[in-house]
Amino acid sequence: MPSLLSSRIRNPTFAKKVVSDPASLIPYFKNGDYVGWSGFTGVGYPKMIPQTLANHVASKDLQGKMRFKLFVGASGGADTEGKWADLDMIERRCPHQVGKSISKGINEGRINFFDKHLSMFPQDLLYGYYTRDRDRNSLDVAIVEATAITEDGGIVPGASVGATPEILQMAEKIIIEVNTAVPSFEGLHDIVDIPNPPDRTPLLVNRVDDRIGKPYIKVDPSKVIGVVEATYGDVTGPNAPEDATSRAIGGHLVDFFKHEVNFGRMPQHLHPIQSGIGNIANAIIGGLADSPFKDLEVWTEVLQDTFLPLFDTDKLRFAVATSTRFSPQGFEKFYANWDYYKDRILLRPQVISNHPEIIRRLGCIAMNTPVEVDMYAHANSTNVLGSRMLNGLGGSADFLRNAKYSIMHTPSTRPSKKDPTGVSCIVPMATHVDQTEHDLDIIVTEQGLADVRGLSPRERARVVINKCAHPDYKPILNDYFNLAEKVCLAKGIGHEPHILSSVFKMHQNLVEKGTMKIDSW
Amino acid sequence: MPSLLSSRIRNPTFAKKVVSDPASLIPYFKNGDYVGWSGFTGVGYPKMIPQTLANHVASKDLQGKMRFKLFVGASGGADTEGKWADLDMIERRCPHQVGKSISKGINEGRINFFDKHLSMFPQDLLYGYYTRDRDRNSLDVAIVEATAITEDGGIVPGASVGATPEILQMAEKIIIEVNTAVPSFEGLHDIVDIPNPPDRTPLLVNRVDDRIGKPYIKVDPSKVIGVVEATYGDVTGPNAPEDATSRAIGGHLVDFFKHEVNFGRMPQHLHPIQSGIGNIANAIIGGLADSPFKDLEVWTEVLQDTFLPLFDTDKLRFAVATSTRFSPQGFEKFYANWDYYKDRILLRPQVISNHPEIIRRLGCIAMNTPVEVDMYAHANSTNVLGSRMLNGLGGSADFLRNAKYSIMHTPSTRPSKKDPTGVSCIVPMATHVDQTEHDLDIIVTEQGLADVRGLSPRERARVVINKCAHPDYKPILNDYFNLAEKVCLAKGIGHEPHILSSVFKMHQNLVEKGTMKIDSW
Repeated sequence: MPSLLSSRIRNPTFAKKVVSDPASLIPYFKNGDYVGWSGFTGVGYPKMIPQTLANHVASKDLQGKMRFKLFVGASGGADTEGKWADLDMIERRCPHQVGKSISKGINEGRINFFDKHLSMFPQDLLYGYYTRDRDRNSLDVAIVEATAITEDGGIVPGASVGATPEILQMAEKIIIEVNTAVPSFEGLHDIVDIPNPPDRTPLLVNRVDDRIGKPYIKVDPSKVIGVVEATYGDVTGPNAPEDATSRAIGGHLVDFFKHEVNFGRMPQHLHPIQSGIGNIANAIIGGLADSPFKDLEVWTEVLQDTFLPLFDTDKLRFAVATSTRFSPQGFEKFYANWDYYKDRILLRPQVISNHPEIIRRLGCIAMNTPVEVDMYAHANSTNVLGSRMLNGLGGSADFLRNAKYSIMHTPSTRPSKKDPTGVSCIVPMATHVDQTEHDLDIIVTEQGLADVRGLSPRERARVVINKCAHPDYKPILNDYFNLAEKVCLAKGIGHEPHILSSVFKMHQNLVEKGTMKIDSW
Repeated sequence: MPSLLSSRIRNPTFAKKVVSDPASLIPYFKNGDYVGWSGFTGVGYPKMIPQTLANHVASKDLQGKMRFKLFVGASGGADTEGKWADLDMIERRCPHQVGKSISKGINEGRINFFDKHLSMFPQDLLYGYYTRDRDRNSLDVAIVEATAITEDGGIVPGASVGATPEILQMAEKIIIEVNTAVPSFEGLHDIVDIPNPPDRTPLLVNRVDDRIGKPYIKVDPSKVIGVVEATYGDVTGPNAPEDATSRAIGGHLVDFFKHEVNFGRMPQHLHPIQSGIGNIANAIIGGLADSPFKDLEVWTEVLQDTFLPLFDTDKLRFAVATSTRFSPQGFEKFYANWDYYKDRILLRPQVISNHPEIIRRLGCIAMNTPVEVDMYAHANSTNVLGSRMLNGLGGSADFLRNAKYSIMHTPSTRPSKKDPTGVSCIVPMATHVDQTEHDLDIIVTEQGLADVRGLSPRERARVVINKCAHPDYKPILNDYFNLAEKVCLAKGIGHEPHILSSVFKMHQNLVEKGTMKIDSW
């Protein structure tokens, strides 16, 4: 066994299970199997076995004949999950996914996908909700990445925890990939077993840095059918760069935070921040770096590159997530300053990072980007034109339902093929609703910020259109609202005025004419 | 002071504040005031002062000139809130309401109403989200019902707790109505102060009957401007009777529970039950009385009459709610057997009864009735035809998001004016979404039960249509689904197939022709 690998496997029982040729494990997989992977937002996923299986399917012409039901905390890697999708190896998938190949398979109907609150997926998996057609409540095989195995047989995950504890618990057979291309992440995780009801007890996290578990995941060694060395790190892309739009949104939000602090509704160090993925999230974190706020805390799903400079300036006291999804440069910086960051970051299982109990207790500030928001403050996080799946719900609703401040940030428009502002992100009615009007407090675009707390739907519509809509769409949206209000109030059905026959006219125009700009309602 | 009243007021400071003529308190109210009431689902609301104010407005022709922003945990009484609405005394209202007069005011645009998760309303009230246009974070006056005042100045509520603790905390001036027409409810409540983040700690409720607070609400006596005797009890209506439809739904659900117990996914005594209001809820509880299940527990928002016989047969071990909304006969039975029931029922603040933290910990079985459910399992709980407010969201989403079993039960059709099955409760797309596809596990109508756990949207649509839709609508819904699926899959946008141009055609037909039965899509 290579010495780097042997130094990472400190338990002799597991050391004996090292398999030098991953292909020797192929016979353990059969068509129709329930398979679980580690991984979350494209980090910490298994690499060697999925690749080996993909090569096997490709070389033996088994496309469509070796298909799996695939369960991953969130998304695996493009180099593995994408390959499986290309080779038609995924029959069923939940609760999240990222990547062109897999979303193509989903939207063409080859992959049965459903998205689920990331806090609930591990719990429902344990309940047996996703295996209820089987004669037993289990997954056939789990493939999980580790960066070390401890003396007493604990698995130290890598850059994500996700649903790995529950996937391991559900698995009949386990394959561990010990990744020697990245440092050991030992000490960065806090893992706790959460029994399902009726045996569940309170989660005793009162501050973001409260440790309540162990730094590894206990595994039953009798279930381990092989330990494989993984020889390359997580394949991540570059960080999404800020632009003028995202900077403007970040600016509006920092102003809003100052306003809330001034009115005594939030302390000077704010509340723990949840921030999504993408350039707007980056711009907000960048904006905080230039703000007067100090001693910030983060309680989120995924850490991106921009959090690192926030640590460096001592603005950020502590950050919790279930995944560190850095760019290659971000990982380099992270590893180079490991000793500094490791005392300031804690990775927890997604069932903890996304748990309503803790999000509500901490009073988080939740910020996410939708597909579209409607004038009454419902948001579509998942399905373009109501039909086409993007990536899935993720943890957006875990956070937005339970946060103290529930914020949706979006550019006011996106380009269509024919028109640079062809798609309005503010619409009369969202074509799919993932976040309801009962959940959102703040809608913000580069145009401005709409504070809808305590407003009735008709008040909300006026504020959202006037503060957030792009000037090209303001008259169109105001026309719809005024017409709907007039018609519905006259009939005594005007709490949330809508004209169902034309409510999606902007969307239909986009499909037919390439822009949401319509001449009349 | 009448001796019954004096026996109920055991604290001398409060006894001195008794006011014999409620009208003497009228000068404390002025147009535009922020006013809070006790009350929840039409019980435990204040009676004398709201009536006195209504009479004042009526007799002095002050309609539209003495309007209030009214905050109540859920709904007040028809005899008070309804009167206020009739007299145009309500300018703003949240988070819930019941009654023809008030919903008329809302849907005609005279009352600015918004509905909010009942677990969040008290918290957001304390945060100052609903008073952010004021120069101070307070309500002007709170009027709350008590059934006793303890030696150390604690208020013992009546048949509901609701948001009374937070409303009292926010009030500058307090009026207490001590109701001597009903027995003292002392000992039935468990009240705890929950500080807002960042000072919140875990709620240490592990079993439904864990007491974590006090049997009364502490009140600052310096804020009390008067104590008034209330001389009549809660005005409630009869219990909604079961019928063949609701009994069939109850039967399907009891069968489903047996199935889950058989598969080991639920213990023999089930999980704590949340059950909504109405005849379906009644039929389910009735069905449980005839089932093999024993030692049941209830963790819900409102207790109805049907729970009482369930106690009597020893089927029900313990029940928690924030309100006991019994019929006049139910209250009679409750009072007559007080000693038996009082050890088996606990009323908690709505922030506790509806808290995601506890609902998820206990693994509740949540059951509610929607306006309509769509084939992909989104539900509309609030707005008919997307526009007309019924009662509001209530706690449905608190429970359905966090329960172990999230169940929507509805008749498959409702009558329209022209057609006894003119309205299908299963539709292609809900015209308003309060519960998302990520929340619901089970849809059940008198036709059958759709178990959608772990299914992709297209799989869900088939099951929901085939199990739940009325035979008159099955072909119509299948036609829509097949057409949408064909069109969208061909375009590679078929995760959740929809045709936006015709998706609400059934609803439009209902408006234009009095039935949802359409000839073609």
